[in-house]
Amino acid sequence: MNRQQLVNHIYSRGSFLCVGLDTDIQKLPSVIKTESDRVFAFNKAIIDATRHTCVAYKLNTAFYEAAGHSGWHSMEKTIEYIGSSHFIIADAKRGDIGNTSHQYAKAFFETLACDALTLAPYMGKDSIAPFFEYENKWGIVLALTSNAGSADYEQLTIGSERIYERVIKTTCELGNQNNLMFVAGATKAEELSHIRKIIPDHFLLVPGVGAQGGSLHDVARYGMNDECGLLVNASRSIIYASGGNDFADAARNEAEKTADEMKCLLQQFGKMNSIK
Amino acid sequence: MNRQQLVNHIYSRGSFLCVGLDTDIQKLPSVIKTESDRVFAFNKAIIDATRHTCVAYKLNTAFYEAAGHSGWHSMEKTIEYIGSSHFIIADAKRGDIGNTSHQYAKAFFETLACDALTLAPYMGKDSIAPFFEYENKWGIVLALTSNAGSADYEQLTIGSERIYERVIKTTCELGNQNNLMFVAGATKAEELSHIRKIIPDHFLLVPGVGAQGGSLHDVARYGMNDECGLLVNASRSIIYASGGNDFADAARNEAEKTADEMKCLLQQFGKMNSIK
Repeated sequence: MNRQQLVNHIYSRGSFLCVGLDTDIQKLPSVIKTESDRVFAFNKAIIDATRHTCVAYKLNTAFYEAAGHSGWHSMEKTIEYIGSSHFIIADAKRGDIGNTSHQYAKAFFETLACDALTLAPYMGKDSIAPFFEYENKWGIVLALTSNAGSADYEQLTIGSERIYERVIKTTCELGNQNNLMFVAGATKAEELSHIRKIIPDHFLLVPGVGAQGGSLHDVARYGMNDECGLLVNASRSIIYASGGNDFADAARNEAEKTADEMKCLLQQFGKMNSIK
Repeated sequence: MNRQQLVNHIYSRGSFLCVGLDTDIQKLPSVIKTESDRVFAFNKAIIDATRHTCVAYKLNTAFYEAAGHSGWHSMEKTIEYIGSSHFIIADAKRGDIGNTSHQYAKAFFETLACDALTLAPYMGKDSIAPFFEYENKWGIVLALTSNAGSADYEQLTIGSERIYERVIKTTCELGNQNNLMFVAGATKAEELSHIRKIIPDHFLLVPGVGAQGGSLHDVARYGMNDECGLLVNASRSIIYASGGNDFADAARNEAEKTADEMKCLLQQFGKMNSIK
């Protein structure tokens, strides 16, 4: 999916919600437990219930890998089921020497047909370069993450800038606003206005709203640009809104509530009215 | 596998070789091409040919993920085939927020039964902490990698130390020499003596010998300690020593040649004679 298509989806649906499919096999409701592929059955129900409320789905690869090759198969089926109407992110945080990163790019952009892959930048620019060789595919590079550990390295200062700023600037040599996003946590919303000074036009993938406690309003206030420029992810707060057999209805309600708030924010801080 | 068992294997086999199974489906010899699981068939032949020469195998997950769930299945079968006689490393470079890293730990230490997993530290200490909750399982944290991009962040200086040194010191709060190793590239062998001042006792996983051009002699000279403390990985130079149907014999020859050199180095820089 290219940038214009993504922006169109955001304004036509009035939502910049990304639903995170962190599907934990230990947390599935009893109604799902008789299905042959329980993880896929759960995801299918969640996707059916939330498709109209969001523009993206993010699959957290860890939860699928925990089940081995059958979990990887559930991920493949889920991606196929989502289809081309939504921006599909593999949250895999990959990054390695060049010939290895080429294989990861093949895994996620060819074999799995995701639109985007999250990338860990520790090993430097050449370790993530291979992901930017694909047309209409995106690398989403970790910049300032939502966890407490972001203080350990990301926020350290070198000269006049912090490491995560250096990561943003260095990575911008590899891609542009049409194939490169950054992860910036909602738990540090004030930092978004600072990040916007460095990259006014790039999309940001923002985790940390919901279970991690970040404020959606603050994210929009400090991070939104004219083309929205935000994908805000919520995982646990939506997919586990209920642990019972009404999980899909509860997920729909929670996702619709979030999307309603997003529509207001698009009107307040974005260009919702002028573009629609 | 615990540290003592690993050290015993090193001295009884006179080798600290780790064979890297970066098995690229595009590079398989014609004799393999009729097998139903070609990647596993190739790995099986390589393992049979090299088992006596090495103490560890490292599976580079990217090459398996490139084939989707069937590739992941090839990885599972390979790990089972190696068995408990060798230290098994998943070179996956994972690391994420806590509840996600718990899932990765489950994937690689429970579902796959690897001994060790490589970890990317960018997101900070809490992102890799869950991997140190397992008995006789190891986290191998990226410190100073073998690629040119290590200059982008790893080698930057903050105050009186470089980022990779900070990573080593910070991570040592999570584990000790019985469950924590670091990646240090052979292409920067002189740095190993500096790293040894910070962590005299920890094992180092050293890539970059072979196709990447690092010197095995220099790695031993600067990095070996009394219990060897090194696992030196070679991937392409062994498994693709020949691209023809004699690939297994060529791999055996190359691995034996490397192991012979390692035996001399264990005598020269280690405690081979006094321990045997």
